[in-house]
Amino acid sequence: MSLLHFLSSGFSETIVTDPFDTPAVLVDLAVAENNIRRFQAHAAAEGLAARPHVKTHKLPQLARAQIEAGAVGITCQKIGEAEALVAAEPVIADVLLTYNIVGAAKLERLKALARRVRLSVVADSAAVVKGLSRAFAGEERALGVLVECDTGGQRCGVQTPEAARDLAQAIAAAPGLAFRGLMTYPAAGGAGAAAEFLRAAKALIEAEGIAVPVVTSGGTPDIWRSAADGILTEYRPGTYVYNDRSLIARGVATEADCALSVIATVVSVPTPHRALIDAGSKVLTSDLLGLSGYGLVRGRPDIAIDQLSEEHGRLVSEGPIRLEVGDRVSIVPNHVCVVTNMVDAVHVRRADGSLELWPVVARGKVL
Amino acid sequence: MSLLHFLSSGFSETIVTDPFDTPAVLVDLAVAENNIRRFQAHAAAEGLAARPHVKTHKLPQLARAQIEAGAVGITCQKIGEAEALVAAEPVIADVLLTYNIVGAAKLERLKALARRVRLSVVADSAAVVKGLSRAFAGEERALGVLVECDTGGQRCGVQTPEAARDLAQAIAAAPGLAFRGLMTYPAAGGAGAAAEFLRAAKALIEAEGIAVPVVTSGGTPDIWRSAADGILTEYRPGTYVYNDRSLIARGVATEADCALSVIATVVSVPTPHRALIDAGSKVLTSDLLGLSGYGLVRGRPDIAIDQLSEEHGRLVSEGPIRLEVGDRVSIVPNHVCVVTNMVDAVHVRRADGSLELWPVVARGKVL
Repeated sequence: MSLLHFLSSGFSETIVTDPFDTPAVLVDLAVAENNIRRFQAHAAAEGLAARPHVKTHKLPQLARAQIEAGAVGITCQKIGEAEALVAAEPVIADVLLTYNIVGAAKLERLKALARRVRLSVVADSAAVVKGLSRAFAGEERALGVLVECDTGGQRCGVQTPEAARDLAQAIAAAPGLAFRGLMTYPAAGGAGAAAEFLRAAKALIEAEGIAVPVVTSGGTPDIWRSAADGILTEYRPGTYVYNDRSLIARGVATEADCALSVIATVVSVPTPHRALIDAGSKVLTSDLLGLSGYGLVRGRPDIAIDQLSEEHGRLVSEGPIRLEVGDRVSIVPNHVCVVTNMVDAVHVRRADGSLELWPVVARGKVL
Repeated sequence: MSLLHFLSSGFSETIVTDPFDTPAVLVDLAVAENNIRRFQAHAAAEGLAARPHVKTHKLPQLARAQIEAGAVGITCQKIGEAEALVAAEPVIADVLLTYNIVGAAKLERLKALARRVRLSVVADSAAVVKGLSRAFAGEERALGVLVECDTGGQRCGVQTPEAARDLAQAIAAAPGLAFRGLMTYPAAGGAGAAAEFLRAAKALIEAEGIAVPVVTSGGTPDIWRSAADGILTEYRPGTYVYNDRSLIARGVATEADCALSVIATVVSVPTPHRALIDAGSKVLTSDLLGLSGYGLVRGRPDIAIDQLSEEHGRLVSEGPIRLEVGDRVSIVPNHVCVVTNMVDAVHVRRADGSLELWPVVARGKVL
């Protein structure tokens, strides 16, 4: 059971009392479910397949909710994430790993995973394709491989449509592999430039007689423009399930759309303008994403979280801080995906007010 | 067994091969033990008690090594850290929790912990002292309490020597509590100003007939100046056990003193000047500590880690990047304490080259 404790201070909305100790991560399930429904409706209206990236929540329960809402499968970034979620939730039958899988140990695990679900990965070099093919040549079921394209994000990805074609041909010819299409992230440099790259690559590959069934992009910042250029068949947003302060700043979400909050307790009020809370970088993380400060204190726009150490967050206000030792605050973090990874479990509040503790089963899966 | 794989490329020192998958955290035990010995010798020479902060390693094995080297006890920041380490390592008999403990749930755990070890905490307000006293009034053994002083760090702490005296009196008079001294962190604003505050507070408290057995400060950046002003009786460095890029930048340590490295594999080389590794913010973290870039690639001063996403680190060089898919790199992280918290276990290399996997038993203890 969860209560909002209304005080007469005029700042009642900042004070939270919940029957769990702090710091803690609290997920408002109704808000998350609404975020899932809203994107799924958008995807359906645009004719896009939805393949949410589960790195944001790392929870089998929410992966299931996303699939039940209509997602074609999930996206993972690490084999360990996929293993944990597939083991926990049998409804997950289709996984795209948007990562170059390199090295003998990971390739062995990839084979085991591919026997349980319809599995695809990406590649952006002949070296990665060679490793995948060597591992899967003897397998009954081919491993799906998409070519990762650098359409402006300047992370991984082939650099030109011609390089995408060459790699698609190599995948199509490689034992144990099936070419499944093109992948990019994020669609930086404008949806237009990304679409131009992808359209050119698709045409070059099709000119070789190779089908391009999937063209997939991702990223919540572009979520509502995700079909603007008509080339995409699939979209892979992650953060949309919770939203965060960075998405509020970009105008993609409102505070009310933010499903995940960090609940913290004031442990010190050393001056009239400063308070310290028990959530530091070990919960909120140091991710700034271009913002100033480390989170939004709900109901207190006058407060900045201007400094974090590992176990302390510093709250400052030009006006009176108006917090006392023992008060609780609710914080929308800058970047919600990384917060999920900092805690072993999240508290989940259902629409009826009841609380459950959900282990973050895919937390910490760096391998 | 661990090998340095010497290639003929001229950049052989960057290439690491170890019999574990990446990303991984590797601790060179001989370097860590040398760091422990070196600080202990300094503390002994200065007449300071050493009370290392275990947040940096979160390992019972290294807490034991610190105590066996001569430390009077350990410092923890969270009850959960102390519980995990005390349960794992019986040699830990004296714990200082440098944190305001607030709330019924934590106070219950504090009582249980105080029955197992000689326990001290800090307080910087009457509210915190009241909670501690209420919890410990019926206990057989008094809880040690130090007054936290804000000597320039602008985090927690009483603001004046007079306030320190008032709180010391309250502690000395409170049932279940024993006043044990003064605590500060970090000694910012110059050791001189901090020392002046502490000296004044000590004199005021002693003038009330209350002894001040301990005056304790911390922070590796000031570790070699830690007795400069003669008021301290104890020092609590944390990061010194591993050191990191931030301490190299401050001139406090050399690269050779850095005991902890992140080992990562190159997964993409999309351009001649860019490579992507499988260590992102989920391992290296986004902590910058005023630096540019997210870590030091050993043996490759030309490379900057200029961007992290959760599972990718981007390496760029103005010259040729000279890395291939599958190559491994060894990275000194910016801030080593937070890296420890990102992994469930660390690989430890002994002086004879043998490797062990040590679970980070106090990882993720946010409560």
